[in-house]
Amino acid sequence: MKIVLLQTGKTADKYISEGVADYLARITRMTGFEIITVPDLKYTGKMPPAEQTLREGRAILNCIRNDDYVVLLDRKGKALDTIEFANELQKLLLMPKKRVLFLIGGAWGVSEEVYKRANFILSLSKMTFSHQMVRLLFMEQLYRALTIIKGIPYHHE
Amino acid sequence: MKIVLLQTGKTADKYISEGVADYLARITRMTGFEIITVPDLKYTGKMPPAEQTLREGRAILNCIRNDDYVVLLDRKGKALDTIEFANELQKLLLMPKKRVLFLIGGAWGVSEEVYKRANFILSLSKMTFSHQMVRLLFMEQLYRALTIIKGIPYHHE
Repeated sequence: MKIVLLQTGKTADKYISEGVADYLARITRMTGFEIITVPDLKYTGKMPPAEQTLREGRAILNCIRNDDYVVLLDRKGKALDTIEFANELQKLLLMPKKRVLFLIGGAWGVSEEVYKRANFILSLSKMTFSHQMVRLLFMEQLYRALTIIKGIPYHHE
Repeated sequence: MKIVLLQTGKTADKYISEGVADYLARITRMTGFEIITVPDLKYTGKMPPAEQTLREGRAILNCIRNDDYVVLLDRKGKALDTIEFANELQKLLLMPKKRVLFLIGGAWGVSEEVYKRANFILSLSKMTFSHQMVRLLFMEQLYRALTIIKGIPYHHE
């Protein structure tokens, strides 16, 4: 079982890249993990948000395999605390699936088609954060959940 | 009216410092804002968490003025979405107080005394994030709320 983070567009901020790289190194020491980045669309400046989201959605769906378990990160999804998330993740990792794929949309969220493909919609926060910041948040939370599953001291309840 | 972020201990991670500095520059262009850091306690390695939290709490209370409006950031507090947070902040900024003080505790949270001093307890997420990461999260969310209050394009609903 492999964990995948599927994200849309390059990471623009250097400090986000550095933070993500830090957690990436820690996570890959613990489990099979990969980040897949759907390239930025060109000419989005003149594109209506709905059009951009639709096109990004198609590119996202191309990266998803039929038997992936897809967890969409969306602020309107189900809010779990860290222990609940770790328990959920542990269950997912025991499923007879090849990949659990966490998905972060673009600046305008995800298309209806992508929404429908999601098996679970997880909220990291009721608040809106930039989709760049969400990457860092997710990496910290995935690392934290893995330390709980593996009994490594990191999380204080 | 000034906004203050009161935090406990140095920022250890370089990428967190860089991200915070980025938002600090943007926020201070928009409003009066200051970050106050309560120094790390010494010899915490041998100290029980309750003792550390109590001592940190006293140092925190020393930095709070009688007429500050104190918003404690705690995952068990009230969850607001970004628009609700912006509305709440706008109301706070109109109060006849000198400072709205946002407070982030240490690695083990805050003491009972500090909890009692808080006028409002705000949850950025049900999940636990490192108190270092919470700084960056808070800065992004404060910046986002200020752009909404001031009608600057940044937030997509």
